[in-house]
Amino acid sequence: MEINGVQIDDTFAEGFPIKVARVLITAVTERWALEAAREATGFGTSVIGCPAEAGIECVVGGDETPDGRPGVNILICNMGYKNLETSLLFRLGQGVLTAPTTAAWSGLPEAEKQFDTGKKLSFFGDGYQKQAELYGRNVWKIPLMSGEFVIEQSFGAVDGIAGGNFLILGQNQMAALTAAEAAVNAIGKLKGSITPFPGGVVSSGSKVGSRYKFLKASTNTAFCASLRADGVCTLAEDVSSVYEIVINGLDREAIQKAMNAGINAACRVPGILKITAANYEGKLGAHQFPLHAVLE
Amino acid sequence: MEINGVQIDDTFAEGFPIKVARVLITAVTERWALEAAREATGFGTSVIGCPAEAGIECVVGGDETPDGRPGVNILICNMGYKNLETSLLFRLGQGVLTAPTTAAWSGLPEAEKQFDTGKKLSFFGDGYQKQAELYGRNVWKIPLMSGEFVIEQSFGAVDGIAGGNFLILGQNQMAALTAAEAAVNAIGKLKGSITPFPGGVVSSGSKVGSRYKFLKASTNTAFCASLRADGVCTLAEDVSSVYEIVINGLDREAIQKAMNAGINAACRVPGILKITAANYEGKLGAHQFPLHAVLE
Amino acid sequence: MEINGVQIDDTFAEGFPIKVARVLITAVTERWALEAAREATGFGTSVIGCPAEAGIECVVGGDETPDGRPGVNILICNMGYKNLETSLLFRLGQGVLTAPTTAAWSGLPEAEKQFDTGKKLSFFGDGYQKQAELYGRNVWKIPLMSGEFVIEQSFGAVDGIAGGNFLILGQNQMAALTAAEAAVNAIGKLKGSITPFPGGVVSSGSKVGSRYKFLKASTNTAFCASLRADGVCTLAEDVSSVYEIVINGLDREAIQKAMNAGINAACRVPGILKITAANYEGKLGAHQFPLHAVLE
Amino acid sequence: MEINGVQIDDTFAEGFPIKVARVLITAVTERWALEAAREATGFGTSVIGCPAEAGIECVVGGDETPDGRPGVNILICNMGYKNLETSLLFRLGQGVLTAPTTAAWSGLPEAEKQFDTGKKLSFFGDGYQKQAELYGRNVWKIPLMSGEFVIEQSFGAVDGIAGGNFLILGQNQMAALTAAEAAVNAIGKLKGSITPFPGGVVSSGSKVGSRYKFLKASTNTAFCASLRADGVCTLAEDVSSVYEIVINGLDREAIQKAMNAGINAACRVPGILKITAANYEGKLGAHQFPLHAVLE
Repeated sequence: MEINGVQIDDTFAEGFPIKVARVLITAVTERWALEAAREATGFGTSVIGCPAEAGIECVVGGDETPDGRPGVNILICNMGYKNLETSLLFRLGQGVLTAPTTAAWSGLPEAEKQFDTGKKLSFFGDGYQKQAELYGRNVWKIPLMSGEFVIEQSFGAVDGIAGGNFLILGQNQMAALTAAEAAVNAIGKLKGSITPFPGGVVSSGSKVGSRYKFLKASTNTAFCASLRADGVCTLAEDVSSVYEIVINGLDREAIQKAMNAGINAACRVPGILKITAANYEGKLGAHQFPLHAVLE
Repeated sequence: MEINGVQIDDTFAEGFPIKVARVLITAVTERWALEAAREATGFGTSVIGCPAEAGIECVVGGDETPDGRPGVNILICNMGYKNLETSLLFRLGQGVLTAPTTAAWSGLPEAEKQFDTGKKLSFFGDGYQKQAELYGRNVWKIPLMSGEFVIEQSFGAVDGIAGGNFLILGQNQMAALTAAEAAVNAIGKLKGSITPFPGGVVSSGSKVGSRYKFLKASTNTAFCASLRADGVCTLAEDVSSVYEIVINGLDREAIQKAMNAGINAACRVPGILKITAANYEGKLGAHQFPLHAVLE
Repeated sequence: MEINGVQIDDTFAEGFPIKVARVLITAVTERWALEAAREATGFGTSVIGCPAEAGIECVVGGDETPDGRPGVNILICNMGYKNLETSLLFRLGQGVLTAPTTAAWSGLPEAEKQFDTGKKLSFFGDGYQKQAELYGRNVWKIPLMSGEFVIEQSFGAVDGIAGGNFLILGQNQMAALTAAEAAVNAIGKLKGSITPFPGGVVSSGSKVGSRYKFLKASTNTAFCASLRADGVCTLAEDVSSVYEIVINGLDREAIQKAMNAGINAACRVPGILKITAANYEGKLGAHQFPLHAVLE
Repeated sequence: MEINGVQIDDTFAEGFPIKVARVLITAVTERWALEAAREATGFGTSVIGCPAEAGIECVVGGDETPDGRPGVNILICNMGYKNLETSLLFRLGQGVLTAPTTAAWSGLPEAEKQFDTGKKLSFFGDGYQKQAELYGRNVWKIPLMSGEFVIEQSFGAVDGIAGGNFLILGQNQMAALTAAEAAVNAIGKLKGSITPFPGGVVSSGSKVGSRYKFLKASTNTAFCASLRADGVCTLAEDVSSVYEIVINGLDREAIQKAMNAGINAACRVPGILKITAANYEGKLGAHQFPLHAVLE
């Protein structure tokens, strides 16, 4: 299979289950909604070393938000609902409540699982917090020095998927990186998915395990062009750099749409030689995303 | 005392000791260095609820970096060196090693306290990591799918200061917010300090303690204009919104310079009525920064 | 009439006919498409002193572009088709052909009026240019040092409208300015319209005529708060700053939708006291846009 | 000669004389100063087809501006002082006077040549403009709807240089483009020079003349990799894309420093094979900049 002359490997990406909450942050301008979203989702690339996986899902206009102001949807992901509740509490409390002019709305009001994060954060009002109905939502109003912070009482979460991915093989590093940027850009316009790594791009793809007992993941040696002389690199001769895009999403369909849009965007960048995906022969995750199927 | 017609309160900001590490991130372009810096310093506003306090110190040109590429200095702060070492390990491992084209250099090579974070992260190379001297620095080269990641063996840290601050009292919220943006902008050009809150601005200034046993800090009621009718607001009648700038830094001088630059910038924004500072009568911290003194 | 507590004046905006061309610029990334769009639409606020009125209409994803790459729609406006053709030729030749990785596509392929701008620019290929059909479009391929530039043979233009507008009256300058930013942001998501002034905002609204024979427009004294003592300011006492949003568009509907979205966004910013519009009692233009009607 | 393994051709860049004015734009925030600067310098790549050549020189902090607010220096260039005066009048009148919260200050107060652009624009005040001394400068205060616009009476200009340049030869287009971005980034931190093309990069380098009588410049066929089969391309086999950086500056030293910084930055990007420069055997311009000399 080929897209725009770029070969698409007949393989699959391997993802795993994760719990996902979605929060809609609104603010006086899109710029301030984005500042809050960045702080709340920062230090959130992988649960291997971060307290959560998190990212910006998409920007929405005032016609899609309860208060008519511009907004940003974020996804926060963690292993198990208990960890996720903790992540929500601290990331909204420290990254959104603290951010100028913001309000926080549940992005999954219909979900079965609901956390009363808004109620918990409302105690910051020191007795002056007030419950109210606003735009049909059950909210808390918390008095702040700068104004009033509005947060919904409950935030919903669902069983989602982490680790959707594809790999971009380039003639050189700048071709692969620009293709990765184009892919992240395309995925950033879709609902239901995030690319949680820095700027959406993974520079350091890993394999499961290592030669060290204390290390559960290590550099994906088979894809390191610099290890050709060591005999462990399996890349074709003309490939000199590989970037990975990792995608978390609310469901299978969101991951599939993101992979489709991302791969199509990457294949339009000159210097890309091949697209493949990372899997661990089914050892890591229950979810398989065959590249040829998601691109149909 | 007045600056540009804005009254400066005769009071002081109260800070407290914190341990601070400085890391210089370089990358192929300033844009990618910034992406890594944002990820590594995100979810880092206050140690009350974040695993560290962190922020971007300043951008530096290729003439100030070991490898001649553009760079961004970040500061990572935590209570105690043990916590700080953990923060460094995870924030560099998850936010910089993972980011396209980056390298990580110690920003405090002369500090007495040194952590071997680079050595620890080098194991990700799964045996293919190599120690080397590069630009006079002792580094590790770790093979990645995308290329080679270079990280210095050791990162220095010092006894720094957290909680430097000032408050901007505005005729309305947009005046106070724009002044806060101008202040953060000015501080962002200085070395040695960060403004760790979202976009550099604190929307939710707090007082020590609350009426709830489980809550150690709560909204600063005396500065909440919306609580006038409740009799707890002590703001003048014409003030309707207050934003706070919180500053962490390497030493007293860095905090003082940042307060000076930030206050001067804020006072040039129309609609600002007064500048004051947050203190807790000396209960919180050992460091006092009198506004009139830092503005001399 | 009120929106979110802000009074909407019962008046109308007065626009005038202008010729409008739409160009879709695609590039390897959205960022580079935007760079080209900014250059091509710069120095384009008002035909009073600029060689054209121009601006960014909206960003579009790869699913809406002929070549599947990210794109930016721009509008270029001028008095008369002859002037417009000149503007197209020079702005595409100097601002898009010169910009990295771009291609230029007609945004109005169905329009009756068509200019062969692509053909004219193709001579830059010095004989090596080639005509081709690409994605169902009739294009020229021009060899460049950096690669190949693709431009459509013909670009369409229509009778459009300039001077759609509304005025934002604020308690102070920062409130009015932030509301203007929010309005521009909202309009920027819509198709068919641009806000051609710097950052989309007009700081210096004008009246027709002046006391000097050589000057056809001068500061709108009735709306200058600083001229209260001179007896020419008609603003209410509590208003101290006014920003104007000027909108050009492909047709009446585009202007109306933009005014509706912009006014609604502005009214959600604290410190806004009133929305009105600029008209010249019908002396300037044939198109009237009553505020209450566009907001229904 | 080599930098970081990249060969530097033993050739020279050829520039030509141009008149240059420098304007310092200040605003309430750096962001708004940049919006004004972009509008005022847009549609300004080459005097071949633009009414001027213009660009952003650098951003300056409040410690370097008369009014203590953040600022942006721009350069406006034209052939002859008469054309330059016209460009100043219209670009400041349409792009800076119209932009929110700006003031305009002369960036060359010591220059022998001075234009009374501020005085001319002051008539927009319709009789309510006032002359004053402010921060030691002779200024006009013009009442606007949004506030007061301050502009210096006179703006200085000097004999400068256009067409400083270098060419970046890459293994592929994305490598060459990223190197161009890194170069522009480095030059953007220096005083005295601009890179007037879109995003600072020239995608369509040209040779003097063409096979068409009406066209004075055409694609630089010797550097077009796509014309290899036509026998006119003189590039080495491994080069597939070339970007040019064009630099205008106040004097020889500014051009030399910019070329030095830009080339050094470009050579640190993977995939760059060679740096050369564009000249026309002395036919075009009086100024020669030998690459080896500027890099010493």
